[in-house]
Amino acid sequence: AARLRAYTGLTIFSEMTALAQAAGAVNLGQGFPDSDGPPEVLEAAREAIAQGLNQYPPATGLPVLRRAVAERRATDHGVAYDPDTEVVVTAGATEAIAAALLGLCEPGDEVVVFDPLYDSYGACLAMAGLRRVPVLLEHDGTRFTFDPDALRAAVGPRTRMILLNTPHNPTGKVFDADELALIAGLCIEHDLIAVTDEVYEYLVYDGLRHLPLAALPGMRERTLTISSAGKTFSTTGWKVGWACGPARLVTAVRTVKQYLTFASGTPFQAAVATGLTECMPWVENLRATLERRRDLLVTGLREAGITVLAGNATYFVQVDARSFGTDDGDALCRDLPASAGVAAIPSVALYDDKKAGRHLVRLAFCKDESLLATATARLAGRA
Amino acid sequence: AARLRAYTGLTIFSEMTALAQAAGAVNLGQGFPDSDGPPEVLEAAREAIAQGLNQYPPATGLPVLRRAVAERRATDHGVAYDPDTEVVVTAGATEAIAAALLGLCEPGDEVVVFDPLYDSYGACLAMAGLRRVPVLLEHDGTRFTFDPDALRAAVGPRTRMILLNTPHNPTGKVFDADELALIAGLCIEHDLIAVTDEVYEYLVYDGLRHLPLAALPGMRERTLTISSAGKTFSTTGWKVGWACGPARLVTAVRTVKQYLTFASGTPFQAAVATGLTECMPWVENLRATLERRRDLLVTGLREAGITVLAGNATYFVQVDARSFGTDDGDALCRDLPASAGVAAIPSVALYDDKKAGRHLVRLAFCKDESLLATATARLAGRA
Ligand SMILES: CSCCC(=O)C(=O)O
Ligand SMILES: CSCCC(=O)C(=O)O
Repeated sequence: AARLRAYTGLTIFSEMTALAQAAGAVNLGQGFPDSDGPPEVLEAAREAIAQGLNQYPPATGLPVLRRAVAERRATDHGVAYDPDTEVVVTAGATEAIAAALLGLCEPGDEVVVFDPLYDSYGACLAMAGLRRVPVLLEHDGTRFTFDPDALRAAVGPRTRMILLNTPHNPTGKVFDADELALIAGLCIEHDLIAVTDEVYEYLVYDGLRHLPLAALPGMRERTLTISSAGKTFSTTGWKVGWACGPARLVTAVRTVKQYLTFASGTPFQAAVATGLTECMPWVENLRATLERRRDLLVTGLREAGITVLAGNATYFVQVDARSFGTDDGDALCRDLPASAGVAAIPSVALYDDKKAGRHLVRLAFCKDESLLATATARLAGRA
Repeated sequence: AARLRAYTGLTIFSEMTALAQAAGAVNLGQGFPDSDGPPEVLEAAREAIAQGLNQYPPATGLPVLRRAVAERRATDHGVAYDPDTEVVVTAGATEAIAAALLGLCEPGDEVVVFDPLYDSYGACLAMAGLRRVPVLLEHDGTRFTFDPDALRAAVGPRTRMILLNTPHNPTGKVFDADELALIAGLCIEHDLIAVTDEVYEYLVYDGLRHLPLAALPGMRERTLTISSAGKTFSTTGWKVGWACGPARLVTAVRTVKQYLTFASGTPFQAAVATGLTECMPWVENLRATLERRRDLLVTGLREAGITVLAGNATYFVQVDARSFGTDDGDALCRDLPASAGVAAIPSVALYDDKKAGRHLVRLAFCKDESLLATATARLAGRA
């Protein structure tokens, strides 16, 4: 379709993973961990297959998973949802985002996004015939943040939705209370829907905490909160996600998703329910491990004189391509697998403002420490 | 979204399954088997989880599965595909259909469909802003067929695609060589894309054989063939499907699907590859079992004086509501779970021409023979 002309190639993640494989490089590109989730969760999936949970689940998801999702959000974030009408299970957060955009907007509507934005957002906005209005996240020397006036100016009469990702990929930014309050205020003032992608909600470091937008006064009734099991339980290939919100928003997601995939992964849904109810200590351990790995990578790179822009969450940090003698991060990433044996993601692929993202390169640290050490040494040698 | 206003309810399958559960009825509604697929396939999935196949597969699917799909289509149907560029794995056939409609058409295009049509077709046509042009399948006393002139008349200057489902749900019709030749001729004459949903390709009875449209002269290059593992291996909850066709069509599907779900079910993809390469004798046994079950149900119902419209394939037969004293199949299906302890699907939900489908009720026979016997006795008592 003409709308999708810009998206006919492989995603940047697939492209860089292919380069990594071809070169036998350490893959710090695509965000997936190199060890799998809690043994209890893996075993629960195997058990579910053996026990015969292999036919269609309800389109909205197995009740046991919807209850577990609601339970976690109530306990961890203080927001209560009715598992029957306010939670819907999806094929990963990706399907939830696609369904939200296709289901909650009309062609021609405007959606405010923070730039850089995860690749599927742009593609789904195009697919749904929506206009994206980007608000740039700029690094102020300490952290990525945005100009409040730029956000205010982005909201206009055709704005239908603000699409937020916190913790944020690729910057690792955790939106703070003030930023969220500003976003909430605009949503309420202009009667907007907020859609928040919170797949890294449990992977937050430095003593910070993830703040869900839905927890702010007046926001529960207008926020669709999306998350998934992939990052929380290191099972990115299972694609079990969900969306929570008031019934009118969840119904719109369900309407679309029941015709995109109907449902998926029955045994994995059961296993993820086990994870959410029994394995949160494992997740806390994963979080601490990832924090240590981030520190290892950041320290090693900085010692080699490489400029690192590190956030406080997710699988990712960014480095400045200029540390490698170029301001073209894309060209650098196409060269690195072969020249240095390391694969990375050119952040510019996720930027609307290509100038702002040109020099940034994203590295994933959700990898074995020996691999991170190897990658650090190789990058140091290339810098 | 306004386009989806007609689709905000649960699907008819979910609705009737819920009625079945509430009434404790025998569920001959939603099409899923009550025993799971080949032990080797189940075990392969469990093994894949244990072996660590739990992270993202390539967006196009695991190479081992793409190769197995191509191998089967070459062996069983005589059509060869390059597994790297002409096969893409999807989250069930459902995602492949959604991606094909969103990816291959422009808003306003017309798509010719055979009526009745599987529910997701209509919803995805609406989602993509397409106009559906139905060609009615009518029962001629022996079988469902269509008026060749009606098909010719359905194709016009705005037609982009013919969307075919063979073997056909809900009629159990296997499109024959003459019908397919007519469809192929129109596709070639008017330079149309054909999309064929063949998920019941291996569940064909009465000595007939499934004929893929892509095997007809001149059709491989313009046909996207969609199928899935759910019905072939009795694993409907795994949602592993695929689309095969020339690279330009497969690329369009990939373009959309990589942003709808990216990918899904890594361990299930490996297990389905095992099924396609090692378990086809099991599938032949399933086919024979289902044929016997269809015969049991049809014979039992006919002995009770119920009019049955039986096809030659799939999980389904249809009965005439007038055998139950009403011509309103929808009302009958809403009543049957409580009044007779049997759930069914009102075929009218799948009809564009509501008058044509009003009296038809679909029954699934992919169930234990004792359940089929119980259901038959209950329906006989209600007739
Ligand atoms: C779905 S592939 C991309 C995975 C991911 O979340 C990322 O690398 O940003
Ligand atoms: C995805 S639920 C519907 C299952 C099915 O194929 C049918 O019953 O027709």
